[in-house]
Amino acid sequence: MVTVSPTPLLKDELDIVIPTIRNLDFLEMWRPFFQPYHLIIVQDGDPTKTIKVPEGFDYELYNRNDINRILGPKASCISFKDSACRCFGYMVSKKKYIYTIDDDCFVAKDPSGKDINALEQHIQNLLSPSTPFFFNTLYDPYRSGADFVRGYPFSLREGVPTAVSHGLWLNIPDYDAPTQLVKPLERNTRYVDAIMTIPKGTLFPMCGMNLAFNRELIGPAMYFGLMGDGQPIGRYDDMWAGWCTKVICDHLGWGVKTGLPYIWHSKASNPFVNLKKEYKGIYWQEELIPFFQSVALPKDCTTVQKCYIEISKQVKAKLGKVDDYFNKLADAMVTWIEAWDELNPSGDISAKIPNGASK
Amino acid sequence: MVTVSPTPLLKDELDIVIPTIRNLDFLEMWRPFFQPYHLIIVQDGDPTKTIKVPEGFDYELYNRNDINRILGPKASCISFKDSACRCFGYMVSKKKYIYTIDDDCFVAKDPSGKDINALEQHIQNLLSPSTPFFFNTLYDPYRSGADFVRGYPFSLREGVPTAVSHGLWLNIPDYDAPTQLVKPLERNTRYVDAIMTIPKGTLFPMCGMNLAFNRELIGPAMYFGLMGDGQPIGRYDDMWAGWCTKVICDHLGWGVKTGLPYIWHSKASNPFVNLKKEYKGIYWQEELIPFFQSVALPKDCTTVQKCYIEISKQVKAKLGKVDDYFNKLADAMVTWIEAWDELNPSGDISAKIPNGASK
Repeated sequence: MVTVSPTPLLKDELDIVIPTIRNLDFLEMWRPFFQPYHLIIVQDGDPTKTIKVPEGFDYELYNRNDINRILGPKASCISFKDSACRCFGYMVSKKKYIYTIDDDCFVAKDPSGKDINALEQHIQNLLSPSTPFFFNTLYDPYRSGADFVRGYPFSLREGVPTAVSHGLWLNIPDYDAPTQLVKPLERNTRYVDAIMTIPKGTLFPMCGMNLAFNRELIGPAMYFGLMGDGQPIGRYDDMWAGWCTKVICDHLGWGVKTGLPYIWHSKASNPFVNLKKEYKGIYWQEELIPFFQSVALPKDCTTVQKCYIEISKQVKAKLGKVDDYFNKLADAMVTWIEAWDELNPSGDISAKIPNGASK
Repeated sequence: MVTVSPTPLLKDELDIVIPTIRNLDFLEMWRPFFQPYHLIIVQDGDPTKTIKVPEGFDYELYNRNDINRILGPKASCISFKDSACRCFGYMVSKKKYIYTIDDDCFVAKDPSGKDINALEQHIQNLLSPSTPFFFNTLYDPYRSGADFVRGYPFSLREGVPTAVSHGLWLNIPDYDAPTQLVKPLERNTRYVDAIMTIPKGTLFPMCGMNLAFNRELIGPAMYFGLMGDGQPIGRYDDMWAGWCTKVICDHLGWGVKTGLPYIWHSKASNPFVNLKKEYKGIYWQEELIPFFQSVALPKDCTTVQKCYIEISKQVKAKLGKVDDYFNKLADAMVTWIEAWDELNPSGDISAKIPNGASK
């Protein structure tokens, strides 16, 4: 029997967002950990299909018809036939925190053989500070048994709020199609017992498979872009969100953590299909990384929304010439923020955060 | 029985530098791993004392009289009664690589109970590239079983030369005096099975206890400063070297790795003595970190020596007003480079490196 703590952390403050096209049998394995929480299921593809959810879970489910009805013309910013549609769930949530997971991800075991409660570890990551301004060689200094090492400035030891917790994957690693093709048998078997803050000014490849974030802090930046049906690209949804998010977190003084928890990623997606989705992205990312490395946000961008609109302008100005797709994407970024604000009318979310000061 | 590979890596290209004031009995435990290599022992304190080295090791030993004789007036840049004196060993070495270790560090065991050959892991770290320009969420992509993840630009996958390999410590963590006082019983028991590149633009606290570097690439920056006898500060020797080194590696496009290997750090030093050595540093580091974060090296600083002299000028200009000590230190930095070039007359070391291009 798996034992779970009697009062789950953040039970009423966190939604689990799951994009899917199939019955959610995978939830059986997660039952001990997920059942106390509310699920937001974003059904992709054919809206007439019925998605079965195991008994006993508390959920709401949105299919494409729901998205179109709720957002009207603004539904154009939500991808179709791509797991990028999950970001609709972020938008309709009313909770402070989001955990999102793919439906081919199962409970992993730690080296002692114990089931890993991924959600609990994400919550711990989000509730403890980050340290983006200086590297701590013993990794997360807030974990039990660790601290700041000699030479770490005391003025930085309070840390900053953590906006994102990026979890990893045992078994099938998150490789691109070329690497999948070259190393079809590679499995990730290395359990690295670490959590760390990705330093300020450093970009990283954010994977949406096993991801948690503080929606109140950074939600409006978690747009997964235009992918899938009718778009020239796929599998860059989470990357796009990660690059935008990291640049905004760096600007607003918030932290992004990566490392624990692991989930068990069960099945590699088809590398040939992936290659077709990715090949433009593989070329474009050579321009995207320098672009995001050089994005400068002006001081008056004091909210996530303002930062995001500013990035959309720079995308249009600087990436529009790479491909017309980026003009469409820049417009969709604006639509996304409009839709976000419509569904979240309480105003600028970050303005409510006591320490969400701009830096 | 411990088994060691029959032809140790870099046997004739690496020196092990050990600063000490006592007999080197600790080498017995390291014999299977260190015996094939040449040792440079830097004897600190009373030069009339005899340091016993276990039978069978190949070594040269320098005491203070030797340092004074070899460097003449320039010996003033080498600290006395402080393990910072170890950097004299870097200067007299003629090898391409250096490994330095404290004499209270023993062989640690990995989670399977196997003795860790720390030196071999350091060599692997130094011989594989670094990735300072973008973060890889599966850590060192060059390790067996790992690779670059989806979203990692292909143009960056070749990596850059690794200049420094910073190893960690099980048992006694490298804490400052205040943390030692507050957490006297804390032990580091977490074996984190990772190696990673510290991103460009990010500073870290480099500990000299278990450290390897490419002397041909970065040697002239590995100056451990003025500490100990006659100086107002101690225990910032390795930190100073780390900050200077990182800034120069970032400028010249080289990498710094941290993580594996672990050594077993046997005994905590006295926190009261440490506090006396550190207390000015604890205040000063609040100025030093912003200083090093803002150091800009001009394009014509194309060698480590030029970079280092430039930093010494900025130290004098910007830190001299913090305390007159930094004026002395800036002068000692210049003396160090003069002494280095005198003992290493082949000219600019980095000029010999094919890919040591300035960025």
